[in-house]
Amino acid sequence: MSAPYVVATAPWVGPDELREQARSVLPQPIFDYVDSGADSEATVAANRSAFAAVRPRPRVLTDVTERATTTSVLGREVALPVLLAPTGQHRLYHPDGEIGVARAAASIGTVAAMSTAGSTGIVDVAAAVPEARLWFQFYMPADRGAAEVMLAAAERADVEALCLTVDTPLPGFRERDVRNRMAFPPAVDPSDPVWADRPEWTAAYLAGPPPAQPNTAHLAAVTQVMNPALSWADVEWLRARWPKPLVLKAITRGDDARRAVEIGIDAIIVSNHGGRQLDTMPGTLECLPEVVAAVRAAEAGGFGGFGGPVGARAPVEVYLDGGVRRGLDVVKAVALGARAVFIGRPYVWALAVGGSAGVATLLASMRGEVDRSLALLGCATVDALDASFFSVPAAWS
Amino acid sequence: MSAPYVVATAPWVGPDELREQARSVLPQPIFDYVDSGADSEATVAANRSAFAAVRPRPRVLTDVTERATTTSVLGREVALPVLLAPTGQHRLYHPDGEIGVARAAASIGTVAAMSTAGSTGIVDVAAAVPEARLWFQFYMPADRGAAEVMLAAAERADVEALCLTVDTPLPGFRERDVRNRMAFPPAVDPSDPVWADRPEWTAAYLAGPPPAQPNTAHLAAVTQVMNPALSWADVEWLRARWPKPLVLKAITRGDDARRAVEIGIDAIIVSNHGGRQLDTMPGTLECLPEVVAAVRAAEAGGFGGFGGPVGARAPVEVYLDGGVRRGLDVVKAVALGARAVFIGRPYVWALAVGGSAGVATLLASMRGEVDRSLALLGCATVDALDASFFSVPAAWS
Amino acid sequence: MSAPYVVATAPWVGPDELREQARSVLPQPIFDYVDSGADSEATVAANRSAFAAVRPRPRVLTDVTERATTTSVLGREVALPVLLAPTGQHRLYHPDGEIGVARAAASIGTVAAMSTAGSTGIVDVAAAVPEARLWFQFYMPADRGAAEVMLAAAERADVEALCLTVDTPLPGFRERDVRNRMAFPPAVDPSDPVWADRPEWTAAYLAGPPPAQPNTAHLAAVTQVMNPALSWADVEWLRARWPKPLVLKAITRGDDARRAVEIGIDAIIVSNHGGRQLDTMPGTLECLPEVVAAVRAAEAGGFGGFGGPVGARAPVEVYLDGGVRRGLDVVKAVALGARAVFIGRPYVWALAVGGSAGVATLLASMRGEVDRSLALLGCATVDALDASFFSVPAAWS
Amino acid sequence: MSAPYVVATAPWVGPDELREQARSVLPQPIFDYVDSGADSEATVAANRSAFAAVRPRPRVLTDVTERATTTSVLGREVALPVLLAPTGQHRLYHPDGEIGVARAAASIGTVAAMSTAGSTGIVDVAAAVPEARLWFQFYMPADRGAAEVMLAAAERADVEALCLTVDTPLPGFRERDVRNRMAFPPAVDPSDPVWADRPEWTAAYLAGPPPAQPNTAHLAAVTQVMNPALSWADVEWLRARWPKPLVLKAITRGDDARRAVEIGIDAIIVSNHGGRQLDTMPGTLECLPEVVAAVRAAEAGGFGGFGGPVGARAPVEVYLDGGVRRGLDVVKAVALGARAVFIGRPYVWALAVGGSAGVATLLASMRGEVDRSLALLGCATVDALDASFFSVPAAWS
Repeated sequence: MSAPYVVATAPWVGPDELREQARSVLPQPIFDYVDSGADSEATVAANRSAFAAVRPRPRVLTDVTERATTTSVLGREVALPVLLAPTGQHRLYHPDGEIGVARAAASIGTVAAMSTAGSTGIVDVAAAVPEARLWFQFYMPADRGAAEVMLAAAERADVEALCLTVDTPLPGFRERDVRNRMAFPPAVDPSDPVWADRPEWTAAYLAGPPPAQPNTAHLAAVTQVMNPALSWADVEWLRARWPKPLVLKAITRGDDARRAVEIGIDAIIVSNHGGRQLDTMPGTLECLPEVVAAVRAAEAGGFGGFGGPVGARAPVEVYLDGGVRRGLDVVKAVALGARAVFIGRPYVWALAVGGSAGVATLLASMRGEVDRSLALLGCATVDALDASFFSVPAAWS
Repeated sequence: MSAPYVVATAPWVGPDELREQARSVLPQPIFDYVDSGADSEATVAANRSAFAAVRPRPRVLTDVTERATTTSVLGREVALPVLLAPTGQHRLYHPDGEIGVARAAASIGTVAAMSTAGSTGIVDVAAAVPEARLWFQFYMPADRGAAEVMLAAAERADVEALCLTVDTPLPGFRERDVRNRMAFPPAVDPSDPVWADRPEWTAAYLAGPPPAQPNTAHLAAVTQVMNPALSWADVEWLRARWPKPLVLKAITRGDDARRAVEIGIDAIIVSNHGGRQLDTMPGTLECLPEVVAAVRAAEAGGFGGFGGPVGARAPVEVYLDGGVRRGLDVVKAVALGARAVFIGRPYVWALAVGGSAGVATLLASMRGEVDRSLALLGCATVDALDASFFSVPAAWS
Repeated sequence: MSAPYVVATAPWVGPDELREQARSVLPQPIFDYVDSGADSEATVAANRSAFAAVRPRPRVLTDVTERATTTSVLGREVALPVLLAPTGQHRLYHPDGEIGVARAAASIGTVAAMSTAGSTGIVDVAAAVPEARLWFQFYMPADRGAAEVMLAAAERADVEALCLTVDTPLPGFRERDVRNRMAFPPAVDPSDPVWADRPEWTAAYLAGPPPAQPNTAHLAAVTQVMNPALSWADVEWLRARWPKPLVLKAITRGDDARRAVEIGIDAIIVSNHGGRQLDTMPGTLECLPEVVAAVRAAEAGGFGGFGGPVGARAPVEVYLDGGVRRGLDVVKAVALGARAVFIGRPYVWALAVGGSAGVATLLASMRGEVDRSLALLGCATVDALDASFFSVPAAWS
Repeated sequence: MSAPYVVATAPWVGPDELREQARSVLPQPIFDYVDSGADSEATVAANRSAFAAVRPRPRVLTDVTERATTTSVLGREVALPVLLAPTGQHRLYHPDGEIGVARAAASIGTVAAMSTAGSTGIVDVAAAVPEARLWFQFYMPADRGAAEVMLAAAERADVEALCLTVDTPLPGFRERDVRNRMAFPPAVDPSDPVWADRPEWTAAYLAGPPPAQPNTAHLAAVTQVMNPALSWADVEWLRARWPKPLVLKAITRGDDARRAVEIGIDAIIVSNHGGRQLDTMPGTLECLPEVVAAVRAAEAGGFGGFGGPVGARAPVEVYLDGGVRRGLDVVKAVALGARAVFIGRPYVWALAVGGSAGVATLLASMRGEVDRSLALLGCATVDALDASFFSVPAAWS
């Protein structure tokens, strides 16, 4: 019997193949909803090309026998610096839905951030997967009463952190969604070739809870929840209101990051919403160093934030999402200052292809990729990564 | 019933689809006449790629509930900083012609600049659309008498401004037009597949006013009007002769801009004629900062221009055309110093596809895009835009 | 009758179409012999991309009524700053051969540089076209006796200048020629589809002088003439031996240019042999400024060259070949310091397509393009061009 | 009879054609095993593009009649600065296997580095080709006893140098190998179209020694030999243990290079394992100058290495592999500081296509290309090359 030279760790080989498998099981409007970006989709591409532009400078002959992909986020260990981004509406991709996603994350030992727009509510997810580490992504409505309802749900679910998305005063414009007349809930007509073409998905979807379910209706309200009035004052209110960790999602500038630190938030996600809001943005990896530097400078300058005197607070953590596809991408982001990264599309693809088990396989596979990348870089642990392991384009600084 | 996630605002989705729709309704020589550029068409591409190279740096958590896409040009408000460039020969694209275009602009609340080479004369357009805000684009003939005839027409039409095109000492060379034997008026032979292939266009065109109409004959004379002797002395003469605002179209250098300011013109359009004159030019967006800086420097240095002592004049406005396709492009140009932009090809496509209503739809759609771009940038109004909302390639400065 | 908007000046529209027409009349081995470059053909592409990277900065409102495409080379006027490069073996492309090429150049008023490897000898060309302005391109053989024979021919032909090619110690390697088994004379077998596919060419070629003609045999010896021992000492000998202007062809470095000036040569052609010798070279336009600066510096430093005391000599002229396809390219090269440019492939294509008349048409067409480019740049004459009319990539300096 | 203008020196024309010939004779899993790189294969592409970015600055009129492609490595002359990289498993490509490769290298006069993972062991190769100059590539196992067995074999084979590969703590991940289920030994099933499609290869392979041969089993153990604990301490042990030249393969940073020099190694190979380990690396040619500078600085700073007092040691040599395809690439690497380069894929292709004779033809052909490149650069000998003959991208320094 022959021994494979390189071992496959998933039913797909690499992220491009995973994406194609997802395309083959999802109806086009659903696949496109996940895949597309704003306008010309240049930001989606920029997120990827930024990773390609950061180039390894491996050190050799460092003993890397004892490697660790673990790190911590918000003071608790995760098995790998890869968290699941809040992507919403998981039952659109697979009947396993949010509960399956939370289970997969828990099985590996990482965080699942659940969307406001989930097809299963955060309380139900928490009840179904008590071992899950859940963060709750929050589109803060203009109405404080409505906000309190959602915060109460987050408290009931005992989430670890609240993650306030700040780049959605309005929905972005995605040409493919408009062309596909994508709606929530989607108007699935099994006699229409668009849907008939993917009979397995269509049967499973139609067998699921009817579209009128509260959670789905909730989603339909998301664009109302998108709140153009959202301001720093709201963050200050929320900071006072929410005692647990508070994370701001979608900061890409140093000045905004500094202000967030001064207000007392706990973490920042450098994000451009997966390229779904503003077109022609730089890749998030390119924005990361400016944000990290501003956070560290703000901390060094001292501040009297929420939770105690200067020095009593844990360092503000910076995460990144957008374009992360391989373990080496994860390692690059961490080396440039991210505590961890979030993945979005890849785990949605894995969910579509393999349900909860697919997501677990993806996470295990990325853990292996992070591990291999560490070894090949000559850096035994995630926590030992720094910028000396990579060269960054001169134009970035 | 399902609610669409992102709302379509036009019968086409995005500028590329609009262009393809125009291609499908126009005979190839007509489509190509609009679409093509000089020589290798590199300038056409550069106009687009310059917009792609300017990257948003959105600010978050600024209250953007109260947004305004309005601004003013030459002291009067427009509903959005998008004006219609003088493109000429509108009846080639749709029977609604210039009058339809002027009506669409007026219905939204912006300016239509009418070409010397219009298929309907400026006086007739003004009479038919009294609510229109018209500017008159002027190819100044060598003969002062001929010029006076045209100026008299502009006065009769009571146009708001005169817009002197200065980059046409000669016509540019467009390979596609030569290959298509494009002529004015086009020799439309309904038995020739080139035209028969677009029967609706051909029937409508042949049902229109015969090619021998004065206005069309006027167009045939345009290349004679292209006047290689045109010089700064002519601009001085025109400045003295024309009491209303005078705009110079197609300046791309700082030194030329300074001279224009010193002569007392009111505004400059940074333009390369949509890439139709000189090949391999930089994109106009790349030229804009140099022109804006020169204008501001000239103003700061003082000048004794037309209309009164230093300080009594309104600041010289700078506009841009070339490659504007989306609302975000508009916002980028304004942020880099443009008072407003002109669109050309997009509204010609919309005219071809939907007549006057198509143009109005396009303008409404762009207004929505400008509005969304403002919101997503964290800048509530067009007038608050500045360069801090974008990063510009290092090579530009 | 309709008036064409832009007038065609040749039976082809633009250089790409001309090339395709040539491809359609020439057997593949012959077309490829002209078309191909060394190894990966990167230098061929670089010659073109260098022109695309230099971008116009047109001045407006300069009176350009009185334009002049004329300039002088080596003290004598030419109708346009475009000379014909020595390309060799013209009867391979058309029965009009070298005599047709010389006639075309003379009819327009420019120089034809004739190759050592001509299918008609320089003496015969001179006799047939007494009005021609001929330069003689010289592969200087190792043997002085052989060199004297060739110089005697050049003298008998009364050529204006001798043009010593200095980049051919060995022939370059062109994959397509090897694949096509291209040989001199080509082994034309009318029953082989390679040649049968182009019956008109094949009939004309086989009807021509037999391959054993002295001129053809001469060509077969060219690779022997390629002389790896060629050195500055040979140039010194030649400078002393040849009283008329001496031009060095294929210098691309400043230090070599300085040395050439010190030896007393009259002109330099910045050339990489059309990309046929060394692969991955920079485009010649990128090399031009370094050579021009070195030449001017060497002249400023004084030298005691051939022909008299310092100051008595005419400035050393710098020309360029490689990648010139349009009039705007010509204008760019002149603006960056070239006295004139040479074209190679384009006139060979024109010769293939239209014989001597084709070459004349091409030259007339390029004269028109130079004229239009001047007008559009706002520069009335070739001699007034300078670097202020263009921006050059920062990386070039 | 006609004389070819450029002489073919091999049954293929250029490296791309050679690769395609190899593709046509090898089953896809075998071709892909050679061809592929890690993850997205960006490093493979970067190795090539780095060569394209270094541009010749040829000097003209230097007498290049007497050229020499010879140089020395580790004190002994080679016919050209091209050595054969350790690629392993040569019988997978052709029955001539390692012995054929060693014979080809010897016939031309260069070094063959034999892989630990050879399909024929180093002792057998040495016995079969006594005239061969062999280096032995060494994956140093964690177990000193196992290491001693391999070193003993290297001693028995009397290899010239030991070449320790230091970039393989783990195998890289190559998507194509996983997709092809590539294994060692490959599970060749002549009824499977994958193999049946290449009947000649399949028959020859199956006629060879059975897969259970010790050498093949040895290979199956290679991934165990990949030793994540390998450290500088092991190199120190090996340096003390191995009296002959010791070469470290796959250093790309200056600091690692300095340390290697301080430990007393004799040479460094700048390598990224042909792009098979870490994705998105810079091309090796881009890494070369940093390594060369560090080596020279370390030597200048003095060190008390193995083998004697400061000054008694020969300069540490730096080689390069990765992306070398043409003679001009070789010349570029040498000009930028490499003593010689290694080729991998090209000679495997030549082996597949033509066996031992194919490899000899390739080497002869590359020697001719090096020779031609020298001539065209105006540099008579390999040893006279320096950086003045090329321009390097500004971004590299």
